[in-house]
Amino acid sequence: MRHIDVVIIGGGPAGISAAIWCQRLGIQHLLIEKKGELGGQLLNIHNEIIDYPGVQAANGRELQRMLLTHFHEAGCSVQLNTWISSINNTSHTLVLHEGNKKEKLHYHYLILATGAGQRRLNVPGEKEMLARGENYSASADAHLFKDKAVAIVGGGDRAFEGAILLADAGANVFIVHRSKEFKARSQYLNEALQKENITILTETAVSAILGEKAVSAIELKKKSGEIMKLEVAAVFVRIGVKPNSELAEGIARMNKDGLLETDLLGRTSDPALFAIGDLCTIPLFSSIALSVGQGAVVAKHLASILSEGGERVQVR
Amino acid sequence: MRHIDVVIIGGGPAGISAAIWCQRLGIQHLLIEKKGELGGQLLNIHNEIIDYPGVQAANGRELQRMLLTHFHEAGCSVQLNTWISSINNTSHTLVLHEGNKKEKLHYHYLILATGAGQRRLNVPGEKEMLARGENYSASADAHLFKDKAVAIVGGGDRAFEGAILLADAGANVFIVHRSKEFKARSQYLNEALQKENITILTETAVSAILGEKAVSAIELKKKSGEIMKLEVAAVFVRIGVKPNSELAEGIARMNKDGLLETDLLGRTSDPALFAIGDLCTIPLFSSIALSVGQGAVVAKHLASILSEGGERVQVR
Repeated sequence: MRHIDVVIIGGGPAGISAAIWCQRLGIQHLLIEKKGELGGQLLNIHNEIIDYPGVQAANGRELQRMLLTHFHEAGCSVQLNTWISSINNTSHTLVLHEGNKKEKLHYHYLILATGAGQRRLNVPGEKEMLARGENYSASADAHLFKDKAVAIVGGGDRAFEGAILLADAGANVFIVHRSKEFKARSQYLNEALQKENITILTETAVSAILGEKAVSAIELKKKSGEIMKLEVAAVFVRIGVKPNSELAEGIARMNKDGLLETDLLGRTSDPALFAIGDLCTIPLFSSIALSVGQGAVVAKHLASILSEGGERVQVR
Repeated sequence: MRHIDVVIIGGGPAGISAAIWCQRLGIQHLLIEKKGELGGQLLNIHNEIIDYPGVQAANGRELQRMLLTHFHEAGCSVQLNTWISSINNTSHTLVLHEGNKKEKLHYHYLILATGAGQRRLNVPGEKEMLARGENYSASADAHLFKDKAVAIVGGGDRAFEGAILLADAGANVFIVHRSKEFKARSQYLNEALQKENITILTETAVSAILGEKAVSAIELKKKSGEIMKLEVAAVFVRIGVKPNSELAEGIARMNKDGLLETDLLGRTSDPALFAIGDLCTIPLFSSIALSVGQGAVVAKHLASILSEGGERVQVR
């Protein structure tokens, strides 16, 4: 069985940073990424990067390239197109899958950096919509919806920000929200209320997404029980993010939202398992710089554990 | 009395990032820096920046310029050449000094980002040495000491790293260390032991730094009580860093090393006082990316408190 001292799972900014630091500190490591390229959520950012001060990048892909330059110059180890089906934290082994190949791997320490993804509605038609590639960015794709009706589902900042962008591009926007109260900041709420082409539907849930070859309408269910059908050309689901913490289930403690509980050193409740990035950061406080910084912290901590034969650092 | 919602003290990477985020989130703020320019410890980094992945900067000043571009483009508020003599956390006021001017300022929240500095020996002659400008960088100034004797005081990574750099540049290096045990990683220790021009003096303390117009020698005191004089052209004090936490004394809890105790949101034990950067980060885990990330977290948290009229976020 192959042995790796430190296995990092997830190749977004947190995992890339952890790998760079492992390499610099002489830690035998392997970064595993399920997609065919590194970058994680960076690949979905179509506007200017604002949360990595000092870097001027027009979009996530530009910052991804900058990070990869460092990553490859450092000589980090990476395995792409590979996913993990299970982790056994007693035997310190995990099962890797690359295409049809399956491999069992032994590790000393595991750094989970699997990030977070969009929370889904889990209603009929949603899976089909995503499978057809109808997963739009309000900033990059707004021009596609000029003079068309679109639905944005959610009541937070991201829902309102998207609605305003789409309305400004000339779309006829419906904000669909389950509750009467909004998490979005009042500045967004006021701006949306003032726009003629934004309609806010409260106490309304999406019960289905309709359409054969493309989205054509959504079915809505009011709190009162009333069902309505709304014709739209696209649905933007903005009901928050969900940490990708499935692999840690039953191993490390997480809160009710699935966020892994960590301390300032990225330690989880399992002594061999560390977590960094959006997997353990409250979405409101998520930032690229924080993820990168957490990657450095965990690698430095592991270097001190590995080189000093297990000595543990006291946080205070 | 002038009122500022959020006052940030200290203009290194953490403070710069906090100010950029305050400005972006519409928080009325002021960054106060005692020196005539921003950058903090960046201004002392003379070699390539390695701990801000994605950025290629030849030295700290280059990264400082990149951060300042963002800072000024964002339109942040800053007051340079200004120091703070006292903080009153009951009345939420602080006393500013700019040249001979003295001003009392009222704040809602205070972000301390005063960083850390080199720990001093506190022996006769040290203050005079520093006042003469004899505060060298082992990487930037090594060439000055070819064929000369120099002393490095300390037993950690930074002491050994400096000793190796100086030895490689042809200096005759004496490592002076109080203890018999070293905190430096074994790889540095082995490398130093193999170099003919590095001599390690253990159980030895520096009791004085001698020289009129420049350092000419140091006085050493062995554990046995024996006093010796060693002729050297320079002394590099590398006995660790000390958080600049004086302003928070009596206000916020700190550990025995003076590090402010904070949680994942940068909160200290005082509800109006936040801390970010090296002021609250164990030196081993300090990194520019972490400081920048912490600046973003604190500003986002304060934005949510200020806009929601005081609602507090539960870490978990």
